[in-house]
Amino acid sequence: MDKIRIGIVGYGNLGRGVECAVRQNPDMEIAGIFTRRDPSVIRPLTEGVKVFPVSELDTGMDIDVLILCSGSATELPLQTPRYASMYNVIDSFDNHHDIPKHFANVDAAAKSSGHLAAISIGWDPGLFSLNRAVATLALPVGENYTFWGRGVSQGHSNAIRRIPGVLDARQYTVPVESAVEAVRSGSNPELTTRQKHTRECYVVAAEDADKEKIRETIVTMPDYFADYDTTVNFITQEELDRDHKGLPHGGSVIRSGKTGWDLENSEVVEFKLTLDSNPEFTSSVIVAYARAVARMAKEGRTGCMTIFDIPVAYALPMTGEEMRKNLL
Amino acid sequence: MDKIRIGIVGYGNLGRGVECAVRQNPDMEIAGIFTRRDPSVIRPLTEGVKVFPVSELDTGMDIDVLILCSGSATELPLQTPRYASMYNVIDSFDNHHDIPKHFANVDAAAKSSGHLAAISIGWDPGLFSLNRAVATLALPVGENYTFWGRGVSQGHSNAIRRIPGVLDARQYTVPVESAVEAVRSGSNPELTTRQKHTRECYVVAAEDADKEKIRETIVTMPDYFADYDTTVNFITQEELDRDHKGLPHGGSVIRSGKTGWDLENSEVVEFKLTLDSNPEFTSSVIVAYARAVARMAKEGRTGCMTIFDIPVAYALPMTGEEMRKNLL
Repeated sequence: MDKIRIGIVGYGNLGRGVECAVRQNPDMEIAGIFTRRDPSVIRPLTEGVKVFPVSELDTGMDIDVLILCSGSATELPLQTPRYASMYNVIDSFDNHHDIPKHFANVDAAAKSSGHLAAISIGWDPGLFSLNRAVATLALPVGENYTFWGRGVSQGHSNAIRRIPGVLDARQYTVPVESAVEAVRSGSNPELTTRQKHTRECYVVAAEDADKEKIRETIVTMPDYFADYDTTVNFITQEELDRDHKGLPHGGSVIRSGKTGWDLENSEVVEFKLTLDSNPEFTSSVIVAYARAVARMAKEGRTGCMTIFDIPVAYALPMTGEEMRKNLL
Repeated sequence: MDKIRIGIVGYGNLGRGVECAVRQNPDMEIAGIFTRRDPSVIRPLTEGVKVFPVSELDTGMDIDVLILCSGSATELPLQTPRYASMYNVIDSFDNHHDIPKHFANVDAAAKSSGHLAAISIGWDPGLFSLNRAVATLALPVGENYTFWGRGVSQGHSNAIRRIPGVLDARQYTVPVESAVEAVRSGSNPELTTRQKHTRECYVVAAEDADKEKIRETIVTMPDYFADYDTTVNFITQEELDRDHKGLPHGGSVIRSGKTGWDLENSEVVEFKLTLDSNPEFTSSVIVAYARAVARMAKEGRTGCMTIFDIPVAYALPMTGEEMRKNLL
């Protein structure tokens, strides 16, 4: 059987994660890695895999699904529609607020070119979304809660790094355990932003920097920190490199709802992830759903989909008989 | 918009649960309850709903989806294929070992009549299966674990009731917390049946019964109890009625797996249910997927499906825009 040919656009943490995940899926192979950097500086982990300038994609490569591993802020809004007009594509677009617009752009491009696209695939959005949906359909009368962490937020880490006098930083998002327990108990508490998560910062400051000023700038930063209880710890670069180099993450989606004629019974549904590597898990999910995109495109499906539209059967490397026997 | 017309076959715990769930889903209505008992003894909770003898179904009723609320042991293997030749149907067939055969029978009947069927919908099989699938596709290198409980097993309770001298009984399946914790830690332990669950029995014995003999009969019963650490508590009927009348259940599906080029990172995925009412939650899931069956049948899909084949979008009472905005 022909292997599914995967193209990887962008070779950062996510692109390398895709490469590792393809290694675990023997029905797939990497058709090429595409970069905006000088291709000669990139050394893929996989033997024999070629690195191309991203412009090479315009020549019409032999690729079943192109996985876009770029950033959601500025790159994916342009890249995903652009490449959906040439290839079947998948991305992990995670800017929740802009998803409707992104979906519309990608859908139009994919439909007019006769390709299939899947957007916002990963864990949040992605598996968390799927479980929010599953819990919501099972419990129409209920409330959804999402907790993130304990895990590194790269956006928040970068926001700290932009402060004058900061050399390096790592920010952990931490769920408030008493809030998680209250939700798990089925009590449907009303929780403010501050009551759900705290933020822990590890900061390397320049020798002559005013640490108190840096601390103040962090904890009062609007959007990022002002609405949270934030702790700031100054450490050395050596300590940061030794203790905070990983990218762990995770969290819980919890829905508690009521059943029964008079809503007399409580039911609680929870989906929880505990991840050593956020980018590797994200890319592992993307690679499996790239299989679904390849299979559904072969059946003639076009346009843009999200995880809500894709039966898991298409993403699993098994026959229907195997999944009914082993997983049902 | 026309409401989805639901037929309910069987009016036990599950059938009543379906009735309660339809009340929470305003796009649905009950077309009738069908019973093998005398219809006049059944008093539906819903005003205006009619109860028919099950034979009435042979006249070709105006029903969009027929929900089969009968037992998996002897009834569903005959009923689901039979009614799939007349209606779109859904069941919660949970005899894992016989699923391949049941699937084949239902698929043949539904295909030849041009109807759509969904089998084994509920929480296990059902949402647990979906999450076993999701975790497996995300982590190809890993191990699945399923823990049930703490919850009432009706099969085990019935097995105890059949012992001479037993008047009533309730059996709880209890996960061994240290085993659950070992799995959550990502250590991929090998666990025997005995290491995963214990069994707690509450038994009402006849006055003249030999309690020690009953205890011995329970703990040595093959398949049901012999492979478990089982505790037997003798209580009065009043105590059983007061403390053990509910049907709580739940459990966890956990997969722990490895990512990274050299499998250097651990990732743990857990899906957990804590249910006051097993039958109400089960029927709540079935009712949502009945919506999916109605919608997919309208698109011309026929044959038999499982939860792996059905995009959650079809089961949710929302538009695509709404689910992308609120759940993605």
